[in-house]
Amino acid sequence: MILKVQVNRHMQKAINSLLRFLRRSEIPHILRIQTTVIKAINDFMFSRNFIQLLPILTSKFTDPLGPDPNSSIQYIPKIKYNGFELCLTQSMILHKQLALASGLKKIFIMSPNIRLENSSRRRSGRHLFEFTQMDFEVAYASMFDIMNLVEDLLIHILWKVNHLNREDLESLNRDLRMPRKPFDIYTSHELIETYGEDWEDKASQDHREPFWVICHKREFYDKEDENNPGHYKNYDLIYPEGFGEALSGGEREYQYERLVKRMKDDGLNLNLYKEYLLIAKEGLLVPSAGGGLGIERLIRFITGAKHIGDIRLFRRVPGEDVIF
Amino acid sequence: MILKVQVNRHMQKAINSLLRFLRRSEIPHILRIQTTVIKAINDFMFSRNFIQLLPILTSKFTDPLGPDPNSSIQYIPKIKYNGFELCLTQSMILHKQLALASGLKKIFIMSPNIRLENSSRRRSGRHLFEFTQMDFEVAYASMFDIMNLVEDLLIHILWKVNHLNREDLESLNRDLRMPRKPFDIYTSHELIETYGEDWEDKASQDHREPFWVICHKREFYDKEDENNPGHYKNYDLIYPEGFGEALSGGEREYQYERLVKRMKDDGLNLNLYKEYLLIAKEGLLVPSAGGGLGIERLIRFITGAKHIGDIRLFRRVPGEDVIF
Repeated sequence: MILKVQVNRHMQKAINSLLRFLRRSEIPHILRIQTTVIKAINDFMFSRNFIQLLPILTSKFTDPLGPDPNSSIQYIPKIKYNGFELCLTQSMILHKQLALASGLKKIFIMSPNIRLENSSRRRSGRHLFEFTQMDFEVAYASMFDIMNLVEDLLIHILWKVNHLNREDLESLNRDLRMPRKPFDIYTSHELIETYGEDWEDKASQDHREPFWVICHKREFYDKEDENNPGHYKNYDLIYPEGFGEALSGGEREYQYERLVKRMKDDGLNLNLYKEYLLIAKEGLLVPSAGGGLGIERLIRFITGAKHIGDIRLFRRVPGEDVIF
Repeated sequence: MILKVQVNRHMQKAINSLLRFLRRSEIPHILRIQTTVIKAINDFMFSRNFIQLLPILTSKFTDPLGPDPNSSIQYIPKIKYNGFELCLTQSMILHKQLALASGLKKIFIMSPNIRLENSSRRRSGRHLFEFTQMDFEVAYASMFDIMNLVEDLLIHILWKVNHLNREDLESLNRDLRMPRKPFDIYTSHELIETYGEDWEDKASQDHREPFWVICHKREFYDKEDENNPGHYKNYDLIYPEGFGEALSGGEREYQYERLVKRMKDDGLNLNLYKEYLLIAKEGLLVPSAGGGLGIERLIRFITGAKHIGDIRLFRRVPGEDVIF
């Protein structure tokens, strides 16, 4: 009756890996902190009257995350179902805009995303090929409204962890400094001048508190400044001490002509986004701003973990074996 | 500069569909209730000292959801990444057991699942091909511990909605009755005798309060009663008024020999689960019980929606077109 499962080297590696994992004394501390963090986020968003939507995992289109001449994503995975080809969600940005088109004003989603990153991203310490972001969007908000909200949110989370998880932080040897509002703001141009194109790590290492970096040329949906073409009303929040990007967001393009121009500039196949574009053409998209806060990156920053994979119970690191 | 997007019949249908959706006056009420429900769940689980894990979307193995000679699932979708073939999550049950093997005692996950149901399931009114369940597991718990916990949870949620969303319930014409503990318990055998094999709808329609149905012959991981072979220590919570299944759970098999026997009885390919089985063989799995509470089904029950698709902003109903 008992099956002889053959224990080959791969199996032994798997067992050793889980055993190693089971013996990691940090894990209960990290997961208790994670529980506080998620609770603090939910409480904060609820107190600010955000409506919570459920995530979607599949759709006819997803965030293309481009254009990037050195794209780190291998491809967008798709599944077939009842004659449809459905993309797995890279981010819910386009669906956030569609949700606001239904008349909602403030929304958030605990949204798991899949991004099939190149194996080289393993070394960054902050990439997973699946992760959860707290994705939110506010109709008619400006970038400064959102930056103000995010500063309050981050301070609330850190305050909660400092109060509820003092012993866990001590066990992890982590002294969690409370940042002060308002956070410093740089433009990406300033940082490129100071640190070069790969400013993120270096600028992060040079700081003791989180800071904003605004004005990035990137995806079509981030709004270009009408009064200053070639400049963009978007922002990244960067953690200090080398932990790098925390959140990415922006005001959004929402007018049909602007979206079409930006998508064409990016060389996107407009046909893939036709339903989205038709809603824009009907004039149903509204101005908005929002962002996505990476949950695992936040836990890594708070716990001081060396690699983002170390805070996951089931590691999903590009270029690493998936064991369970 | 302006692209002429061609409006064919499919496009017009898409636009009309969103417009119809935008004009649905119930949506803000439903989503406000949803926000309360998710908040109430998080608060309750936090107050009971559950550790919150993040969901996984991909894995080397997932819940096979079988065996079922008339399986309603078309197939388990897989993606390829760096030489791995990864299944999309149908449920996190096996990973919940692995998580408890790391020494955690009480865990929960807001877990989005993909299940490619046959189109005929469209008619059930309660199936989606992607949905979120609140998946939880407690080490060393008995089925009655879990049933007691779930009764408290459901009463807490309904109480919160009744207090915070009275106007929304009135707008939806929904009178939400507070159930009383303990809920009635039937065996599946009793209900089959009374209603026949498709007892779920009929028994649900015959009741005014939620009730339990215990002892189902189903997946290999639900524990067989040692003192009464052919009987099982598992349970479904059924909503009244025809809303059907709310939650499914059980005590678990965790001993290597038992798991192997049950999997072989089900005709499963043990090789697909080898890492899981090796952990069991090392004696690292612990006795546990838990369940999964379908969030969309709960929102449907609370709001009294005719079809589960009606409570989603982005419909994911088997056999329906996916528009966005």
